Amino acid sequence: MAFLYKADPARGAQWAKLFAQKAPDLPFHLWPDFGDPAAIRYLAAWLPPDDPTRIFPNLEVVFSVGAGIDQFDLSGVPAHVPVVRMIEPGIVEGMVEYVTQAVLTIHRDLVDYGLQQQQQVWREQPVKPAGERRIGVLGLGVLGTAVLQRLRLFGFACAGWSRSPREIEGVDCHAGDDALAGFLARTDILICLLPLTPATRGLLDAKLFAKLPRGASLIQTGRGPHLNQQDLLAALDSGHLQNAILDVTDPEPLPARHPLWTHPRVRITPHIASATRPDTAVDVVLENLRRHRAGLPMLGQIDRTQGY
Amino acid sequence: MAFLYKADPARGAQWAKLFAQKAPDLPFHLWPDFGDPAAIRYLAAWLPPDDPTRIFPNLEVVFSVGAGIDQFDLSGVPAHVPVVRMIEPGIVEGMVEYVTQAVLTIHRDLVDYGLQQQQQVWREQPVKPAGERRIGVLGLGVLGTAVLQRLRLFGFACAGWSRSPREIEGVDCHAGDDALAGFLARTDILICLLPLTPATRGLLDAKLFAKLPRGASLIQTGRGPHLNQQDLLAALDSGHLQNAILDVTDPEPLPARHPLWTHPRVRITPHIASATRPDTAVDVVLENLRRHRAGLPMLGQIDRTQGY
Repeated sequence: MAFLYKADPARGAQWAKLFAQKAPDLPFHLWPDFGDPAAIRYLAAWLPPDDPTRIFPNLEVVFSVGAGIDQFDLSGVPAHVPVVRMIEPGIVEGMVEYVTQAVLTIHRDLVDYGLQQQQQVWREQPVKPAGERRIGVLGLGVLGTAVLQRLRLFGFACAGWSRSPREIEGVDCHAGDDALAGFLARTDILICLLPLTPATRGLLDAKLFAKLPRGASLIQTGRGPHLNQQDLLAALDSGHLQNAILDVTDPEPLPARHPLWTHPRVRITPHIASATRPDTAVDVVLENLRRHRAGLPMLGQIDRTQGY
Repeated sequence: MAFLYKADPARGAQWAKLFAQKAPDLPFHLWPDFGDPAAIRYLAAWLPPDDPTRIFPNLEVVFSVGAGIDQFDLSGVPAHVPVVRMIEPGIVEGMVEYVTQAVLTIHRDLVDYGLQQQQQVWREQPVKPAGERRIGVLGLGVLGTAVLQRLRLFGFACAGWSRSPREIEGVDCHAGDDALAGFLARTDILICLLPLTPATRGLLDAKLFAKLPRGASLIQTGRGPHLNQQDLLAALDSGHLQNAILDVTDPEPLPARHPLWTHPRVRITPHIASATRPDTAVDVVLENLRRHRAGLPMLGQIDRTQGY
């Protein structure tokens, strides 16, 4: 019985060390040195190999090393093999930090102050109290919920939208397609934390932007293909949207000379909002192995019919 | 018995409206239309007139409309007239927002990512968990305490320094001149929230920066004269300090063509971190008037011997 890791080799070396400490009885292999393929029961990967069960006939679980599994070709994973995405405290902490910084940057007009500094202009912008700033989060999973719980402490008017109904204390929760327009109409700062599925691909487009109030801003921490980048540039240029802070693009890396790089109202980071932390991630994987052996559902196990 | 306001006229008009609602029996005047000078018992000012008790012989209290009173010439206010600085929820909320944004900007390398965007470079920086990032706040009054309490929630390693001993849950508190060097040696992100007094003027200089670890950063939300700006530029250029986020400068406005405007590792905002909010400020002033009439100490009443 062995565990195979197939992703960034530097992080893989950290996983190997942590496995040696925390699960010394479970042999740990780093792709491509997987040893006896029949021994591999567990695979943690960013991109699994094609047809993993043909190579590893006794494979029992596939773990994504990322928060999403949209990069997986699930057709190559048989239905009896559970697929588990990464829900671990390090990813949550990083996302809460990134989104809080982005919301406060927009709330306190720091994009404008940055432009003023370039022009060496000392001029105060009008202030809005947090209670009058309406935050809206698309996607109310572990990340969206954690982000809203932190933003509430600043006194923002917080709402969220998800496909199926959720409840979060102090947050105005909207659910389903029919509720989307109403949610958008009351949102000044829109944060995308949706999974990427056929239903959410291209959701952030001109039609959606038109439902936001004039002067709204976008924080895009989902996946690049959620966003129609041309529609975003048009909405910024028309003044309908005020600012965009993007951690993901399509493609990644964003090519040099792409107009997003130089737009004065766009801030870009290279998909760094949040990354799996080996120390906390290994703890979660080992806990999920215990659950799997005990026949319990695993934390982050995906529903193959929904794709998240 | 009347109240006189002498500061920004636009905010003064908001104060007048709030006084009319909340204290209709107390006549409210806007400088320079103060009516009968003998009737003025209370003065709220950014800069009081010279020799206020000569103009207003029955003056009982002077309120600053700002969080500090360093702009006051206290020699013109007789010792029997209490001076009260502004401690109100709006100022606290604004400062917590500003400093949180600044700390997360530095913690998540967003100054570097901004420079990378200018060069159209997509490159990940190494990540540090919040628990390994050491925050240090100079000044543990109402603002410093509120800032540390919010930063603790992100998991940062939090410490503070003040002249006299303080206790804040979860914060490593240092006190007095002898403890300053030890506090600085463990601080990666230094935040100045000190009052401006003869003892703190020029405190942020080359000698102090040398006691910070290499690669530390400064968030300056105190008063312009706390900082030796030439020493800051030298420390940034030598690489000893990494980033500076300045909300106050000396002089203000910062003159065009000043080298701080164009330094790639300096972010400047025009003294906007936090401003008195008329709605909450008037509530605090009215509460202090009740306390004064009842012979109780007022919230924010300063110690004339310490100057804060």
